[in-house]
Amino acid sequence: MTNVYIHGIGMTKFGKLESSLKELLLEASTEALNDAGRPKIDAVFVGNFMGGSISNQEILGALIANDLGLGYIPSTKVEGACASGGIAFRQGILGILSGEYETVLVAGVEKMKHASTPDVTQAINSAMDTSSTEKHAGLTFPGFFGVLANRYFYETGATKEHLARVALKNRENGVRNPLAQFPKPTSLEEILAARMITDPLGLFDCSPMTDGAAAIVISRKKSPIHVRSSSQVSGPTQMQDAVDLLSIPAIGESGRLAYEKAGLGPEDIDVIEIHDCFSMTEIIATEELGFFNRLEGWKAVEEGRTKVTGDKPVNTSGGLLSRGHPIGATGIAQLYQLVRQLRGNAANQVANNPRLALAQNLGGTGSYSTVHILERV
Amino acid sequence: MTNVYIHGIGMTKFGKLESSLKELLLEASTEALNDAGRPKIDAVFVGNFMGGSISNQEILGALIANDLGLGYIPSTKVEGACASGGIAFRQGILGILSGEYETVLVAGVEKMKHASTPDVTQAINSAMDTSSTEKHAGLTFPGFFGVLANRYFYETGATKEHLARVALKNRENGVRNPLAQFPKPTSLEEILAARMITDPLGLFDCSPMTDGAAAIVISRKKSPIHVRSSSQVSGPTQMQDAVDLLSIPAIGESGRLAYEKAGLGPEDIDVIEIHDCFSMTEIIATEELGFFNRLEGWKAVEEGRTKVTGDKPVNTSGGLLSRGHPIGATGIAQLYQLVRQLRGNAANQVANNPRLALAQNLGGTGSYSTVHILERV
Repeated sequence: MTNVYIHGIGMTKFGKLESSLKELLLEASTEALNDAGRPKIDAVFVGNFMGGSISNQEILGALIANDLGLGYIPSTKVEGACASGGIAFRQGILGILSGEYETVLVAGVEKMKHASTPDVTQAINSAMDTSSTEKHAGLTFPGFFGVLANRYFYETGATKEHLARVALKNRENGVRNPLAQFPKPTSLEEILAARMITDPLGLFDCSPMTDGAAAIVISRKKSPIHVRSSSQVSGPTQMQDAVDLLSIPAIGESGRLAYEKAGLGPEDIDVIEIHDCFSMTEIIATEELGFFNRLEGWKAVEEGRTKVTGDKPVNTSGGLLSRGHPIGATGIAQLYQLVRQLRGNAANQVANNPRLALAQNLGGTGSYSTVHILERV
Repeated sequence: MTNVYIHGIGMTKFGKLESSLKELLLEASTEALNDAGRPKIDAVFVGNFMGGSISNQEILGALIANDLGLGYIPSTKVEGACASGGIAFRQGILGILSGEYETVLVAGVEKMKHASTPDVTQAINSAMDTSSTEKHAGLTFPGFFGVLANRYFYETGATKEHLARVALKNRENGVRNPLAQFPKPTSLEEILAARMITDPLGLFDCSPMTDGAAAIVISRKKSPIHVRSSSQVSGPTQMQDAVDLLSIPAIGESGRLAYEKAGLGPEDIDVIEIHDCFSMTEIIATEELGFFNRLEGWKAVEEGRTKVTGDKPVNTSGGLLSRGHPIGATGIAQLYQLVRQLRGNAANQVANNPRLALAQNLGGTGSYSTVHILERV
């Protein structure tokens, strides 16, 4: 129980966009402020990862405060690799819990499509430990999750088709989400035949580069959407520190903490947004968060349990794979989708008036994970 | 009254260093943890500005948590240009005030000397609004503060010699601080004759590029050093938004807020660390923070009031000008010096057992400012 409530949400279209980093940030923030009824804002937090490296633009906090005329309020950019958005959201919550702020704007943004692929890849690799042998050996993110997938196949009997089913589900959801990056339907056959990125991960198993922003207004004042709990953890920064290749302990720890604080368990959650940076990651995360038994997430995929119509709908937005993955915005975009689910007007609205929703945002290969549980009150 | 207390401090030598960004961070953090008696740490905040752009290294929060074996605790990097350190410190305080954490490690770090001057300059310029005409017209930071200095001369009768006296004072302090970047004494004549950077600012009027890190452990548990108040504000991100060229309103606002929360005024402060990114900035900041009347800071310099032996000692560490300015570390290094002043064992220890100390950390041309007031209890 945080006694922090969500008052407004905003999100740009995700994809390849003409707008600058700042314009995206202001667009999503303005929409969230309007949705919240233009309250007085006491502080701003922004999640962003590579504004400095590929857009030569930092000071995103001050740009919002200044350009939206919010006054001399505190503003802060927060970085935690791909979990920057979820971490920014948590800092906003802490600011309210501290008693220093009543109402806070949290935004997340990334602009990636204007830069060359090598430049973006290099910027992404700053989410690894530069001193590690792994990085210099070329074990970058697709490599890491590819190794993990092969081991998962070996241990469980799952196949590349299970990964493809995750990608297909998220694409089907994305096609029905007007803000998602990929409007084009695809088929299991196309996904299976797509060019290989890192064995066994093909093109559709990997999240894309994306431009986009999302924003959210939270307050101590009540609203129909309560942030039931918030957790953030750090984990191993290198694969060689992993005790078990088929576990991403940061996800499990962040889930355990969030459930404990909420007094809830995975069985209580109605709708879920998970950090599917790769199709494999979604399966592992559903296990780490306790929705399915360890090494059985692939069976849940086979049974359709994570579809919009399933008992544990995962990534009804299209997820990172098909909604897109503008890094700093992703954690906030997850919350945007869940708030719409709880309000009952989401793309891919799930049935039976969902009441409890969970968002999990991952950074690096498990260096960071945040979990937020929202409830309709 | 924050009821947050300082338990430990650590700082590397500042200058051109062989250690990597991560090594600097771990060195300062370990020293602070040892100084605090190795308490259990509940969260980590790191201030850093250009790790991504020039060292290809983000995830600094997770690197500390992982490499120092602190466990699955939350860790967050914070950016607010040159105020990244002060802002990180404030987030640590908010985390404790929120009730979520008892004891927090806050570190700041920058590594700049390994990169080429154009690369570092470009990275620094990400602290300006990239969409502004000012940036593209070449009005970068030395230009901004140069314009301001010329206007200050015009309005007040101050001269380049007053700026030189600020630079000389800070160099004299730096020479006596073993952790400072510049051990070499200089003279007023040498400062006045140094090559021009941006009229009227010569080489000694501008803070250098620096490698270094500093860290601090804070807790809800009592210690002899209390954080009496904390403030953070955002301000205009462009010079054209300034109402008055001779005012940096973010500094004034952050001071006003900090005094109000502390129930104190500038007359109560015994020792001061100010963000002297340029000699001119120190003078303006002493006015904005109410130590001297507006447009009279230069007279206080002339009278020696800001020297170690003066009634308002400013930058006894050597300041940014001579201690050095590893961007993300600066705000924490200011606090390091003030804690040592309050403990009575500082380089350039001021007389009469100082009890109240103030640190002010600036970002951009006034996009951010933080003020922290420490008291010996």
